[in-house]
This record gives sequence, structure tokens and C-alpha cells, in this order.
Amino acid sequence: MTVLHGNAMVGQSGGPTAAINATLSGVIRGVLEARKDIPTLYGLRNGVEGLLKETLVDLTALCAEEETLLTLEDTPAAALGSCRYKLPNPSKDPETFERILAIFKKYDVRYFFYIGGNDSMDAVAKLTAYLETVDYEMRVIGVPKTIDNDLIGTDHTPGFGSAAKYIATTIKEIIRDCAVYTIPAVTIVEIMGRDAGWLTAASSLASLTGEGPDLIYLPERDFSEESFLASVKERLSVHPNVVVAVSEGIRFADGTYVGAAAQSGAKDTFGHAYLAGTGKYLEGVVKRTLGCKVRAVELNLPQRCAAHLSSATDIEESVRTGRTAVSFARAGVSGHMMVALRKDAPYTIEISSSPVSEIANMVKKVPDAYINEAGNGVTDAALAYLAPLILGERAPVYECGMPRHFVIQ
Amino acid sequence: MTVLHGNAMVGQSGGPTAAINATLSGVIRGVLEARKDIPTLYGLRNGVEGLLKETLVDLTALCAEEETLLTLEDTPAAALGSCRYKLPNPSKDPETFERILAIFKKYDVRYFFYIGGNDSMDAVAKLTAYLETVDYEMRVIGVPKTIDNDLIGTDHTPGFGSAAKYIATTIKEIIRDCAVYTIPAVTIVEIMGRDAGWLTAASSLASLTGEGPDLIYLPERDFSEESFLASVKERLSVHPNVVVAVSEGIRFADGTYVGAAAQSGAKDTFGHAYLAGTGKYLEGVVKRTLGCKVRAVELNLPQRCAAHLSSATDIEESVRTGRTAVSFARAGVSGHMMVALRKDAPYTIEISSSPVSEIANMVKKVPDAYINEAGNGVTDAALAYLAPLILGERAPVYECGMPRHFVIQ
Repeated sequence: MTVLHGNAMVGQSGGPTAAINATLSGVIRGVLEARKDIPTLYGLRNGVEGLLKETLVDLTALCAEEETLLTLEDTPAAALGSCRYKLPNPSKDPETFERILAIFKKYDVRYFFYIGGNDSMDAVAKLTAYLETVDYEMRVIGVPKTIDNDLIGTDHTPGFGSAAKYIATTIKEIIRDCAVYTIPAVTIVEIMGRDAGWLTAASSLASLTGEGPDLIYLPERDFSEESFLASVKERLSVHPNVVVAVSEGIRFADGTYVGAAAQSGAKDTFGHAYLAGTGKYLEGVVKRTLGCKVRAVELNLPQRCAAHLSSATDIEESVRTGRTAVSFARAGVSGHMMVALRKDAPYTIEISSSPVSEIANMVKKVPDAYINEAGNGVTDAALAYLAPLILGERAPVYECGMPRHFVIQ
Repeated sequence: MTVLHGNAMVGQSGGPTAAINATLSGVIRGVLEARKDIPTLYGLRNGVEGLLKETLVDLTALCAEEETLLTLEDTPAAALGSCRYKLPNPSKDPETFERILAIFKKYDVRYFFYIGGNDSMDAVAKLTAYLETVDYEMRVIGVPKTIDNDLIGTDHTPGFGSAAKYIATTIKEIIRDCAVYTIPAVTIVEIMGRDAGWLTAASSLASLTGEGPDLIYLPERDFSEESFLASVKERLSVHPNVVVAVSEGIRFADGTYVGAAAQSGAKDTFGHAYLAGTGKYLEGVVKRTLGCKVRAVELNLPQRCAAHLSSATDIEESVRTGRTAVSFARAGVSGHMMVALRKDAPYTIEISSSPVSEIANMVKKVPDAYINEAGNGVTDAALAYLAPLILGERAPVYECGMPRHFVIQ
């Protein structure tokens, strides 16, 4: 396969992570190393939206300095901006794709890199399918990112390790905080992950160097209020400071989200209405049933944007993934998503790629082997899987006592 | 004043902070340097509770190593445990004080250091008053800690700078996160501080290196829903991603907490009941009135326990404060609280002390000069006051990808 001469485009899509800019940096690094073939790398403002609107930024000019790239790697969220725009089906809306093709031709774009989650991989699949029907040679690569770690075909996703490190550290700090008093108290920590419990499972990592959460509830198992209460009671009989990690996505056996039920304005048996989330709902359940001190803590946005505490492993792998995407594209790969193939003892990953059509729109759940029998904790196998992903600390540059960020104006 | 020969006791009380163990380390360091006069430092488990129950730990033995002290300084919450026990009035309950005196005599205690907030300073004042009525010479010193920064007589309190650094960094990361989409959205960040707005004011520090919050609401000013909505609307007309920092303690003009009203089961004009906090209440207000995307983020416990992001300035000052407390006590000071006297340009603090009776049970509010006229932001004077307190980063030791903590078993 010959190297294609022409420019490249890169966009970011989906929810922010602490590592999506590291992947962008990797793509920039890859292009900078290949400038004899790829003179210019255009960044799309707000993903596919920026493609359709031609709101572009010349990243090869903007990010040529090593210091800039390092700062970019320590900047959370999407420096190019993101979008939730879902590409239509090429057969139903050929005009959109004709427009995209015209823009590719206008800027002599032969390489397209799209960094994102499931929706972005769907865009890559559609674009690939369309390009096969026209007479224009170019290479399209999906580069995964999601804190949710729920893409199939890859051992784990860029962004997950940093979120997991933030969650493990914060749970450890909260456990320390909760331990100072002697009166019985239950602290319920609500963690992101609507459909897969990877992030909530990461709370277990705190146990590697001391105490972990007493109980962990993932969306992979039906949630039962009765067994939850029984488990909390049992833990309170062991020590006064019970810490519970729950996924925002836990569901009752009938399929309704615990948090959605809480938000629907439904009233409990006491006539109370709820407008809060999963943790807040369970706070109410424990308060009314067990009567002890109880509070809910929602880790919320910092889980996906706390770049000051990124996993160096995650950031380095994200850079490598972006860089490898460029070299794979130059070598002729197209219509693929970059994947991580793992070896353990010692932990290493090989960056490879798989056809995106086999990957998009599927959700990788936490496997049964990682969840304990009672459905209220994780197994040693889960810890072994998770542990290497949070290793290593970055050394972000601090200005005025806060980490420096790189902002594309 | 002669140096007293005898042992020392130290306890921690009140809510956890990221720096209270640094102050403890300072007291330990001070005693280790004075062992010819003070052979043993007893740590009280759970503050005054541990004093009355004689649950003691020999800190001079446990923390003799430099590595242990450094780890202790990077461990959040109270390593000795805390309590909410309020000492009674000596005139009303002399038995409690007689029991305390008997324990002091039993362990030959001549120095008592109590690290805590307002309640702890009240305990120091009562103990001092009682000891003046009996024939037992000893020195009692209060060492302040509170993330709330609301103690009078001192420029700022140990623990505040680290919480402020966490809040400023997290607000900066959240602003980055919110900036990725182009649709209008309001993000309301609820920050601790029931009676004083120091922590919420610290969110403004993000503006020193880029954007800060669009609007900042402190409990020092009456909260008006009308002007809040008008300000949010005005900011939305400038850019789509509006970030608002609100103190959990903001109140309406009639004195009721915005959050308390929300928690009381009160129903709004649509018949919805609320069981959430200040941020969640305002989320509902914006959603119903402006109709745009809106979400509330409560920073919650990590504000006071995120020791992985401590301010090095705060930790070093906390250690100095504990250490100076020991040297002041040896020099004859008693019945005092340690205070920080500040000079600017360049910023330095001198550690001194003031009679605790003049300090306890009063709240230091954010002064008018630090709040803008509209009551929805802070002034440059506030930034100048806050900026030095968050400077510098610690280098905590990481184990398994998480900061190492020192736990007293």
C-alpha cells in the first residue's frame, strides 16, 4: 500500500475526558513526524459540526512546540471542542456526505482521524462505507476515548485509566475522611457509568493499599433494596464508617434505573417526592430504614476532567494510540478503530487496530468473573485487570497554584 | 517563665481537612526537638472523647521517623480521629474537669495542644479558665484548623489554602469541561461554607490564568432569585457555557437558607417537592425559568480531604504552626490560639498567638471590600488576599497509583 500524499483532519467528539487531548497530541506528533507526506493537520472545531461548517484550525502551526504538546496532554476536556452530532445514514442523506467529500477535496484531505466514543465510531463506520462508493482515496481512522471503558475489541479505552485513578484516590480520601468519627454513618458515593460498571469497579483499587469501599454496586447486576440494606447493616456491625460505591446506572430487576425512579417525581411510601440521583435516593432509603447518619456524594464532572491527577500510563498510551493511528493510516489502514492488545506480567500493551464496523454501537460490560457472587463487590480478577491502568503520575506545570492548560482560542 | 518538665497531649477535633495532620506533624516535630523537657507526646483518639476515655497513643514512639512525618503531612482527615464533643461549662459540670485534671496528673501532662475549629477553641478557653482555679501548672494551646477560614484574629487558617487550591483547580477543570459544547448550558457548582464565603470566593482564583466562574454568590450577601436569573441570562448572552459558583450557605433576604428551603419538603409553584441542596434547587429554578441545559455539581467531601492536591504553602504553614505552638508553650504561653500575621509583597507570615478567650465562638466573614457591588463576584482585593495561599505543590509518595496515607491503627 502506498503512502498517500495530502493533508489530515482530526476531530474530537463525545464527552470530555482527561486524556482525549493526549490522543490529539499523539495525532499531532504523528503528523509532525510525517510532514513530507502530510503537510498540514487541520483540527475541526466541535467535531463533525466543525467539518460541515469548515471551522478549522491549523494544528501543525499551532502545536509545533514540544512544550505546547506536553501542556495539551495535561489539559482536560476536548481542546478542539466536541459535539453530539450523529452522522445520518449515507443512503438516507447522501447530501451530507457529498458535502463532507467536497470539503475533503477542497482541503486536499487524505487522512481523517476521529477521536471519540461509540457515536464517533459510528461516524467513522458511516464515513468509511460512503467513501467506498466514491472515487476518492483516503484513510479514515477512529481513535477511541471514553472514561466509561465500554468499547469492545480493545482491552481498555484511553481516558478510563485517568478517571479510574481519580476515583480510586478520591474514594481513598473519602474513606479517610469518614473514619474520623465513631458514630455509625453510611456514605454513598455515586460514580459515573450508565450502562457499564467499570468506573465504579475502579473504586475497589483503594483496597490495594488499605481499606476499600465496604460495598460496590454495578449496573451489571439487578439492584435489590432489600439485599443492599442487609449488606449495609452487616457492614455497620463490623465498623461504624461504611462507605458504599454505586454506579449511577444501577437498575432494579424490572429494568428501571434507581436514579431515574428517583427523578421521576415518584413518591415513596412516606409520600416524599425525589428529584435527585441514585446516591440521593439510596441516602433516603438508608435514613428512613436504618436511621443512622447517612450522606450521598456524587463524584460528578471531576471524574472525567480531573487532569491534575491523570494516570501517566493512560496519558502515555493515549499519546501512543494517536501517534500509531497516523502511522497505521500512512501504511494503508482505513475504516479501523485503534485498539489496545494487552499482555500481563509485566503489563504491556500493543497498539493495533480492528475494523470499526465490528466494534461500533456495542457495549462492553464488566464480566461476571469480575463481580462477586453477592453482587456487592468485585473479585481479585477485577483488581488485577484494573491495577496497572492507574499507575504513574504526570508532572503538570503549575501556574498561580493551578495546573496550566492549553486553550485553542 | 521557666520551661515546665512533663509530658504533652495533642488532640484533633472538628471536621477533617487536608492539613490537620500537617499541624499534628508540627506538634510532633516540636516535641521531638524538646524531648529533654517533654519526654512523651500522647495522642488522644477522637479528641476530648479520647482524653476522658484515656484512649491514648504514644506519638513520640510512633512518629519518630522523618518519612512517617512526611507521609502524615500528606494524609487527609484527622489521623487521631475527631469528635464533636463540646466541653461543658466548668461551673456547671466541675466533675468533667476534675476527671480531666486527674488524667493530666496521672500521665504527668504539662502541655496540652488542641487542633481544631471554633468548638475546639471553646474547649481550650474553658480548660484554661478551669486550670486557673486549681493548683496545677500546665500550658494549654489551641491550634486552629478549618477549611472555612472563619476564625478571627488570624489572617487565615491552616487547611483553608489546600481546600482553596482544590476548589480553584476543580473549577478550572470544570470550566474546561463545560467549554466543549456550543449549546447554551448553565453549570452551578455548590461549594462548602455555611456562614462564610471564603471557599466559594476561592473559585475566583481560576481567573488568574484564564476564565473564572461567570458568577459567584457568597452567604455574606442576601440571595435574590430575580437578580440571579437576570445575571445568568446576561452571561448566556455573552457565551454559551455559564459556570456559577454558589456557597451552600446562601440565604434569601428573609434569612432562610436557599438549600434549607430546598430540603424542607417545600413545594414550588409547580407542586414539585425538593430534597436536594442549594445547587440542585437553583438547577430547578434555571431549568424552569430559562429552559436551557443546566446541571448542579456539589464539590462535597473532596473539598476538605483532597490531600493529593494540597497547597504546599498551607501544609508548610500548618507544620510551622504546630511546631511554634510547642515552642510558645515551652516559653510560657497558655490559653492562647496560634495565629498567622501576614505581610505582603512578598507574602510572608509570622506565627504568633492571641488569647483564645478573645477569639472563640466568633465568625470571620468575607469583608465587603472583597465582594463586588452587584453581589455576584469578588474584587481584585479578594484575589490578592487569596492568591498566595494556594501556591506550591507537595510531592506525595504514590503507592499502586494512589497517594500513600499514614493510618494510626
